[in-house]
Amino acid sequence: MSDNVVPMKRTGEATPSLSPILSLTATAMNSVNQVILDRMQSEIPLIPALAGHLISGGGKRMRPMLTLAGAQVVGYQGTRHHKLAAAVEFIHTATLLHDDVVDGSETRRGKSAANIVFGNPATVLVGDFLFSRAFELMVEDGSLKVLKILSSASAVIAQGEVDQLTAQRRIETSEERYLDIVGAKTAALFAAASRIAAVVAEREDAAERALDDYGRNLGIAFQLVDDAIDYDTGTADMGKDRGDDFREGKMTLPVILAYARGDEEERRFWQDAIAGFRIDDADFAHAVALIRRHDCISATRERARHFAQRACDALSIFPDGAARRAMVEAAQFAVSRGY
Amino acid sequence: MSDNVVPMKRTGEATPSLSPILSLTATAMNSVNQVILDRMQSEIPLIPALAGHLISGGGKRMRPMLTLAGAQVVGYQGTRHHKLAAAVEFIHTATLLHDDVVDGSETRRGKSAANIVFGNPATVLVGDFLFSRAFELMVEDGSLKVLKILSSASAVIAQGEVDQLTAQRRIETSEERYLDIVGAKTAALFAAASRIAAVVAEREDAAERALDDYGRNLGIAFQLVDDAIDYDTGTADMGKDRGDDFREGKMTLPVILAYARGDEEERRFWQDAIAGFRIDDADFAHAVALIRRHDCISATRERARHFAQRACDALSIFPDGAARRAMVEAAQFAVSRGY
Repeated sequence: MSDNVVPMKRTGEATPSLSPILSLTATAMNSVNQVILDRMQSEIPLIPALAGHLISGGGKRMRPMLTLAGAQVVGYQGTRHHKLAAAVEFIHTATLLHDDVVDGSETRRGKSAANIVFGNPATVLVGDFLFSRAFELMVEDGSLKVLKILSSASAVIAQGEVDQLTAQRRIETSEERYLDIVGAKTAALFAAASRIAAVVAEREDAAERALDDYGRNLGIAFQLVDDAIDYDTGTADMGKDRGDDFREGKMTLPVILAYARGDEEERRFWQDAIAGFRIDDADFAHAVALIRRHDCISATRERARHFAQRACDALSIFPDGAARRAMVEAAQFAVSRGY
Repeated sequence: MSDNVVPMKRTGEATPSLSPILSLTATAMNSVNQVILDRMQSEIPLIPALAGHLISGGGKRMRPMLTLAGAQVVGYQGTRHHKLAAAVEFIHTATLLHDDVVDGSETRRGKSAANIVFGNPATVLVGDFLFSRAFELMVEDGSLKVLKILSSASAVIAQGEVDQLTAQRRIETSEERYLDIVGAKTAALFAAASRIAAVVAEREDAAERALDDYGRNLGIAFQLVDDAIDYDTGTADMGKDRGDDFREGKMTLPVILAYARGDEEERRFWQDAIAGFRIDDADFAHAVALIRRHDCISATRERARHFAQRACDALSIFPDGAARRAMVEAAQFAVSRGY
């Protein structure tokens, strides 16, 4: 097998895990966490209280981890990316806070969502604060190229979120449109977070593009599996309430496939459900049964595997080593998690 | 009278108006409006629809006007500031959209607020989009100094908004705290909008500081008069519903002064009203009567005059001419408007 083939999985291998990428980035992540804690402070006590509720409430720090792992795979030796990784996490946190207001979420990461504890007004405004702080951090770093990548990603994310809102409760949403939305609302920040590692390392365009491709495809894989898990009642709790997407009438891939593969009666059910007329527990159980009947969870995971494989192949321009192997396993994990 | 004394008002002068600053900046404002219209576009139709609802719904474009007038007073000949003035207006529009969600506003600029027409979720997200677009515009301009000024102002605005939220329904809020809030939520963007004109003109620090001081003090004067008008039922409609602040329990200067100047019984009324137990029309009428009894509208306007005078005096380092005179009259207008 050539060095430039980056296999997703070898036979007999253990279940893929985030452990290698967590170990790879652990030391740098301590610095990033310090920046996060320092820079979410404010003279207004409600700000660190609310921001801290979400930020210290766990979360995988996937996006800053991509910046850190990306820096390792390109052989960057400096520390500029610590501040930028914190900026990435602030942008992500701001979007989570606003998402929770937009969706009227009740829980996030296994505890009450910020909007429930602190109310919508403070949640919107602290999101704005973190978003501004993210740009302050980038300005301190001083790279216009990084600023361009992350301001553009932020605009794309917002457009993706609005697009998702427009598609909500619309049963006719296609897989193509769904992938556009996922590409914007989720994958754009994964791509940007990875890409900026090559920018701070002053690597050539090809390295930037490779990291961008890795992050983007990984982001799509992550979101697909997230959307599958929302209908996968047989798997362990991951701090996510099952059925949220269903009750909110979000058109995610499991539903798009179940609708496409269903008969007339099933389609009528989905039309009613997505329109918001069938949202109780029995309806959700029926939805899960239909999704199982047509293998839509595994079909969604197969789609995720495709994007994860593309993510891995994008890394082929980098030398084999601990960083690349950890990033590959992270992509494998993206597909297999929640099983 | 020395050239360096910038008088607020000469006896026998006509009512101050925005006309001179509007004329001064009219041509450049056409370019700014073109940038605004171009850059609020998106493939997602809801975005220009919602943004346009507010952006084309009038508004004085005060903040971009300050950038344009500032550029004239420092003798800047280029056009870089057009894009930056549009960025300033986008930041302002984003905060208005989020404010309307935070306050549950029903009207804005004399028509239904965006959150009423389009709902809270889309309003939050389009605010985020405009905020990101603002940073994209700044990045295109490429001045890290401008990026620093406006990202810092954005963080200060968000902190001021959260601070205002914290002070809401708290009768013990002091004039000092109120001025801190106004300085952050309103004056910071006025200051930044003015200051960046000296930055693009590559003028010395003193010119930057002078424009910053002008904008900051003008912003405070504007907000004070806005807050006075909310209790000034005797004046003409300015697209603002009277009594909004009262019903929301916002601690603005007219209330702070009426509470300080009131007797025991009046204070009990204010305590109940600000706590939210007296918010019907008769209560508001009583509040207006108490504020009149203690001359709190004119006291608030006098405070505004103080800040407007400081704004004018800050301009003394610039040569007398059409730009400076228009900026002085804008400060006079800030105090006298709504009479």
